[in-house]
Amino acid sequence: MADRAETQEAIKVQGEVVRKLKAEKASKDQIDVEVAKLLELKLRLGGDDVKHQFVLKTPKGTRDYNPKQMAIREKVFNTIVSCFKRHGAETIDTPVFELKETLTGKYGEDSKLIYDLKDQGGELLSLRYDLTVPFARFLAMNKISNIKRYHIAKVYRRDNPAMTRGRYREFYQCDFDIAGHYDPMIPDAECLRIVSEILGELDLGDFHIKVNDRRILDGMFAVCGVPDDKFRTICSTVDKLDKMCWEDVKNEMVKEKGLSEEAADMIGQYVSMQGGMDLAVRLLEDPKMSQSKQACAGLSDMKQLFSYLELFQVTDKVVFDLSLARGLDYYTGVIYEAMLGPAGATPPPPPPPQAGAPKAEESLSVGSVAGGGRYDGLVGMFDPKGRAVPCVGVSIGVERIFSILEQKAEAEKVRTTEVQVLVASAQKNLLEERLRLVTELWNAGIKAESMFKKNPKLLSQLQHCEESGIPLVAILGEQELKNGMVKLRTVATREEVDVSRADLIEEIRKRTSPV
Amino acid sequence: MADRAETQEAIKVQGEVVRKLKAEKASKDQIDVEVAKLLELKLRLGGDDVKHQFVLKTPKGTRDYNPKQMAIREKVFNTIVSCFKRHGAETIDTPVFELKETLTGKYGEDSKLIYDLKDQGGELLSLRYDLTVPFARFLAMNKISNIKRYHIAKVYRRDNPAMTRGRYREFYQCDFDIAGHYDPMIPDAECLRIVSEILGELDLGDFHIKVNDRRILDGMFAVCGVPDDKFRTICSTVDKLDKMCWEDVKNEMVKEKGLSEEAADMIGQYVSMQGGMDLAVRLLEDPKMSQSKQACAGLSDMKQLFSYLELFQVTDKVVFDLSLARGLDYYTGVIYEAMLGPAGATPPPPPPPQAGAPKAEESLSVGSVAGGGRYDGLVGMFDPKGRAVPCVGVSIGVERIFSILEQKAEAEKVRTTEVQVLVASAQKNLLEERLRLVTELWNAGIKAESMFKKNPKLLSQLQHCEESGIPLVAILGEQELKNGMVKLRTVATREEVDVSRADLIEEIRKRTSPV
Repeated sequence: MADRAETQEAIKVQGEVVRKLKAEKASKDQIDVEVAKLLELKLRLGGDDVKHQFVLKTPKGTRDYNPKQMAIREKVFNTIVSCFKRHGAETIDTPVFELKETLTGKYGEDSKLIYDLKDQGGELLSLRYDLTVPFARFLAMNKISNIKRYHIAKVYRRDNPAMTRGRYREFYQCDFDIAGHYDPMIPDAECLRIVSEILGELDLGDFHIKVNDRRILDGMFAVCGVPDDKFRTICSTVDKLDKMCWEDVKNEMVKEKGLSEEAADMIGQYVSMQGGMDLAVRLLEDPKMSQSKQACAGLSDMKQLFSYLELFQVTDKVVFDLSLARGLDYYTGVIYEAMLGPAGATPPPPPPPQAGAPKAEESLSVGSVAGGGRYDGLVGMFDPKGRAVPCVGVSIGVERIFSILEQKAEAEKVRTTEVQVLVASAQKNLLEERLRLVTELWNAGIKAESMFKKNPKLLSQLQHCEESGIPLVAILGEQELKNGMVKLRTVATREEVDVSRADLIEEIRKRTSPV
Repeated sequence: MADRAETQEAIKVQGEVVRKLKAEKASKDQIDVEVAKLLELKLRLGGDDVKHQFVLKTPKGTRDYNPKQMAIREKVFNTIVSCFKRHGAETIDTPVFELKETLTGKYGEDSKLIYDLKDQGGELLSLRYDLTVPFARFLAMNKISNIKRYHIAKVYRRDNPAMTRGRYREFYQCDFDIAGHYDPMIPDAECLRIVSEILGELDLGDFHIKVNDRRILDGMFAVCGVPDDKFRTICSTVDKLDKMCWEDVKNEMVKEKGLSEEAADMIGQYVSMQGGMDLAVRLLEDPKMSQSKQACAGLSDMKQLFSYLELFQVTDKVVFDLSLARGLDYYTGVIYEAMLGPAGATPPPPPPPQAGAPKAEESLSVGSVAGGGRYDGLVGMFDPKGRAVPCVGVSIGVERIFSILEQKAEAEKVRTTEVQVLVASAQKNLLEERLRLVTELWNAGIKAESMFKKNPKLLSQLQHCEESGIPLVAILGEQELKNGMVKLRTVATREEVDVSRADLIEEIRKRTSPV
């Protein structure tokens, strides 16, 4: 590389170029190019001469995971994946971006929240908005007509972030879906069982899962006298019932959306209903509801669903709730949403209004940690022959779960490594002996480390163990080396024993194997 | 939702709108908006009426992973993560995109390969190009001055893909880095030990790791008479030696880059040298090399490195090779690259020229499966006070490894689920009994499934087990139900035993626990 003084001179010159361009109000592109050159010159000098050039942050609505947060995330994913595997799921992965046209027309109003990539020549691309549309594209592309799969990956929405409540622009979804022509409601019931297992195992306290059916909603709107062309907009108002009181929802229907007061009141009566199989049976006999073929189809399936939920031992967690109306366009049958807290708990107060914030209709509401439903038409949209593949699935919203568990863990000590032994030395000039021993341990598959200093103090080695939760220390000293021994110290008790080098691995295994 | 006939009518009308706009050659945006409305209408009808609207593909240079490929990927990641954990690493994660300015000026010429996001208002963002720059940003932002961390995630490069050889635009990197002020070459040696462990455990056949040092390269260029301002361009020509013969490399130096023939020949002598500690010792006494302070510093460290590699038992895998010259700007000391095949093997023939293809300087060459080095200046570029944090690390290029293992597995049967038992029925009308039993098994933590049909044929249930590699079938029949028994069938041997319902779980555990 060029001589240091010369590089410094070049930096000075290039700095002038940049200042001049800025003074001339040159185009941003032009300035960027010259700034880049300047930074490269500075890089050659190494860190010392570089001044702060950057806003040191992650993009809006995103975050890093530090090791402690990763340890929590790993635990949550393990629980979720174990459950998915227990139910016989395979897994797939898809690219983080799709052709823009693949996402077009799938998300209704929420399409405005899609991240597009810059047109740099070639295809127009967008970041995936969920894992469901890529899954449907995958099925159609590979002509797969039945599969049980899970997919855990990040999705992207240019939504207004509320990071303290676990709402991000980049966030994980953990999706489980069943595709195929099967007898009604069996896969749908298994999805609910899965949500129930996962939320139970994650130990988040009480929870309940609301279920409804798009056909019941549509039938209800029809018998309440909602004009056909208002179904979707009224449906999205009903969807706000978890955040707004009925009066406000009614107001929106009548004043903003022009629904008759009578129709709104009738809807109000239905959407206050909650129950189980009994409610489905009652509504099948309801003089108004029973007039809608769609509603009846939905209600008979709901009855059937609850009979399977009984066998799956989860009826205590599931509530048939006519106010549930998930926003996404692609649902065609059963829909569900899981909330923390006991069933029937009063909804929390509405969040403060966020000026100009586009609200993703489908984004999880306060307390909501999973959602899903049946979407029988989506795969057919991608299939060249329009061949339909019925699908039902559920998505676990882990970010909120991470937030809760991270808050819980704030005071706790969470181990972020799995090191079993630190190889330490009690005297100077034993680096080589430490490296020799740690190599023996690695060869035996033991998780071990040694400090990267030639002559670390014993105290600082022991402190490192306390801080990282390493349970054992193998201490080398000249005496030990002469006798072919190692001092094995248990960090928690400070107890030390002399172990012969030949028995060391066995002894470490014995002391660190899970009870 | 609206009546089917009405939706069909609306589709007709909307179709006309789109056709009219296209005929009028309206703006693409305007047409897109109306096409989106059309697609949404079609979505309401479900799949049957939708014609093929899309190019069914993933974006250029990307791919899906099907379940079999995921099973292989999971195995590779498990091997790699186990090794990282055995060496005491923590893990972190960062967003898939960074502020554009975070990536500016870090990749030299390769910056043109960065994917930018569209400016949709707000910050300018780019997809990460590697995991090293986000790591440096993370360290500076959180004022972390020492850490041993791994990070496994996808990175993005608008490079010319060569997917059969495992070169993609979206691909995984598995990075392990050690940051902190330590005694020289101890962490550097551990990185090499880690690469060696991983490549050995992945069972990819013979491999070797080339090492060199940026300071040795620079010193060599200086003593060979390369002008200061040509160091980098000559270095990037030397980097091509793994794909081009020496004559072509020399030609490029002399004819394209204007180096004197004499200087080129001198470089030619040095870059043909390969060895171990002996070579470092010899070059320290080389009359020319020893004139460069930089080269001497690099060579003494190389000597030291090999002494640690000896203790780590990996000298048989590591070759000091003066032709290794990795392209990335940020390296400041040791650099390395691991290749499949024995050391000193003749390089494969050059790939066919790709017209207009930008070639990422750092992209792994044919046979190369890992690379890395020391970058002591990068964190300082982000730190407000320019405070330096020395780092060294390695990146495993798993895509090529996936390609190799996928090819190996082509003929093999790879299980993509972990189901231990299928709950089956031998007669009709036993759906409820099957669901009851599969629930018992799930409750006991056993991986089980049952078919989603009311009355599946026994044969098709058994076939499903054969296809998915499920080892056991629990068969229910009326007789068994009456006697409180289950017939447990071992798929491989077709042997069947009657087990009492109370002993079933124990029996399944016994038969499926790993030996």
